[in-house]
Amino acid sequence: MESLRVALGSRSYPIHIGAGGISRPELFAPHLGGGQVAVVTNEVVAPLYLAALRKATGAAVEIVLPDGEQSKTWEILNRVFDALLEARCGRDTLIVALGGGVVGDLAGFAAAVYQRGVPFVQVPTTLLAQVDSSVGGKTAINHALGKNMIGAFHQPLAVISDVATLDSLPQRELRAGVAEVIKHGLALDAEFFGWLESNIERLLQRDRAALTHAVRRSCELKAGIVARDERESGARALLNLGHTFGHAIEAATGYGAWLHGEAVAAGMVMAVELSALMGHLKKTDVGRVRELLKRAGLPLAGPALPPERLMALMTLDKKAAQGRTRFVVVEALGRAALCADIDDALVRRAIVAAVP
Amino acid sequence: MESLRVALGSRSYPIHIGAGGISRPELFAPHLGGGQVAVVTNEVVAPLYLAALRKATGAAVEIVLPDGEQSKTWEILNRVFDALLEARCGRDTLIVALGGGVVGDLAGFAAAVYQRGVPFVQVPTTLLAQVDSSVGGKTAINHALGKNMIGAFHQPLAVISDVATLDSLPQRELRAGVAEVIKHGLALDAEFFGWLESNIERLLQRDRAALTHAVRRSCELKAGIVARDERESGARALLNLGHTFGHAIEAATGYGAWLHGEAVAAGMVMAVELSALMGHLKKTDVGRVRELLKRAGLPLAGPALPPERLMALMTLDKKAAQGRTRFVVVEALGRAALCADIDDALVRRAIVAAVP
Repeated sequence: MESLRVALGSRSYPIHIGAGGISRPELFAPHLGGGQVAVVTNEVVAPLYLAALRKATGAAVEIVLPDGEQSKTWEILNRVFDALLEARCGRDTLIVALGGGVVGDLAGFAAAVYQRGVPFVQVPTTLLAQVDSSVGGKTAINHALGKNMIGAFHQPLAVISDVATLDSLPQRELRAGVAEVIKHGLALDAEFFGWLESNIERLLQRDRAALTHAVRRSCELKAGIVARDERESGARALLNLGHTFGHAIEAATGYGAWLHGEAVAAGMVMAVELSALMGHLKKTDVGRVRELLKRAGLPLAGPALPPERLMALMTLDKKAAQGRTRFVVVEALGRAALCADIDDALVRRAIVAAVP
Repeated sequence: MESLRVALGSRSYPIHIGAGGISRPELFAPHLGGGQVAVVTNEVVAPLYLAALRKATGAAVEIVLPDGEQSKTWEILNRVFDALLEARCGRDTLIVALGGGVVGDLAGFAAAVYQRGVPFVQVPTTLLAQVDSSVGGKTAINHALGKNMIGAFHQPLAVISDVATLDSLPQRELRAGVAEVIKHGLALDAEFFGWLESNIERLLQRDRAALTHAVRRSCELKAGIVARDERESGARALLNLGHTFGHAIEAATGYGAWLHGEAVAAGMVMAVELSALMGHLKKTDVGRVRELLKRAGLPLAGPALPPERLMALMTLDKKAAQGRTRFVVVEALGRAALCADIDDALVRRAIVAAVP
């Protein structure tokens, strides 16, 4: 079991990474405050891991939600509140999120606002959640007019990433998680990007040592950024590389049709094409990004839609400030930068460069 | 214009109290961040004060909600999100809550979770909101199973309490606000309780100097508590004097039938009766509390319901911890204390002492 720490003063917390963490009571014990333990999970994950988690935590309240991005709504969130209130959960309740990004985002937001905030622990069971969404305290649900529009910053007490749970992950979801791993290398660490070029097949074959390294390095990179900018007023926006485009793809195709990581992969292609059009990134580096994503089995192109449709959706993106959309561009492999005031015509050309 | 400050480190903020504040642009100017200004108000307040506020703030987005406690729901909250998203409000939007406690709680919660948090300013237009709910950062909506069950601690950038707006307040709502003023004296400041005994009629006649003093002293007392205990882990619970009973009364009668302050008044009678039964409070002091509430035209008795109904509802109250209900008792006029492990039979007798 490897551990690292997200340094956020009084809100600091550990991330434990390794096989079998879900079954180790000593990882949970420091966070049981004497109140009830309520597990939020979904109907796919529950049959696989809920029994082990119940044994390790003593959870008495279990809330099993439908699977999928379509569940990240107020209606489903309300089911969590109903169950917590019916079980008379007080302010000392510990919520444990067991599942992927949807469960983590929704259960984390439930913890952020139930009785004005209760503690929670993340137990991510997808690669995407282990390398990205479970770390950093961003929680949210979707709104009909935009993804993650309603949410809170609410840091967990701990993240317990059991890489053995990735054994049960469908290959398509594993690939989608790899997209966020690649994002971390592309945005922040050229050496890690190079490691991925050498080890991408090991990850896709679920080599546990390779997975543990990828999860650990992703968490280290993300934790370093989050420690500097907890509430995304600056550096943290770099982690949104590919996401301005990616969110628009998800919105245009209906949440759930594309996996988040797939949309981010196509969005990264658009982002590096934009970076090249702006003269930041070499064409050969664009080629390396495309090649790595291709080897990972990820989409290099967005949906077959008019570019204007994606551009209209992007202006609604939550990173929009004062009517302007900001983009994360790549100045070199491993070095992303935030950029506003980009000409719409360039953005359009970048989208066109990455549509079928 | 009088001003005081809620001391919360980087989240400190001013409270401005006096007639005409709503029309003074210089009170709002420090908080306009360059983004859009969105006013959330209701259909009763809008015709009276929205034009003045628009002029002082330059607000371009106006969201007018139905009046009343029944509006403090997710469905109405979603209307705020719809309007903000349709107007393409970004993270730099300033939300201004113009109205009473319902508007302030709901608009404050909208600000807490819209795009994971945007700033807001409170412009309370009821006495209850000016002396209590606008100060301290508690925001919430109701759930079918309990009042204020879903919410957040989200401090405003400023509170602008224009006592001239109290001219338009129905007398019943003025009295309900006086209940919270009396609560502050009873819980925290015997001298202020004495001042109220001498000046209650001036308040009910809307003497502006008396109102300004009552608002200011209430805010000072509350700000002092909030500064010591922002998230209600200790001292802040003292401000809930009468509220454990009061919330049960509101829940039992359907939110909105009793005004919050009316339920708190009857709840305070139950709380002082309980304090007397426990041997803390002298019978003569119980009499002084009853007499002051009576002169304020407030109810001294709860609804005609079996005491068991209120007791069952109280166990669901959000202050319940590990299945136990904690009560705020009064050890002497101006000195409240938190007390757990009170015998159910005593609680029942206290309720019976204050039913018709």
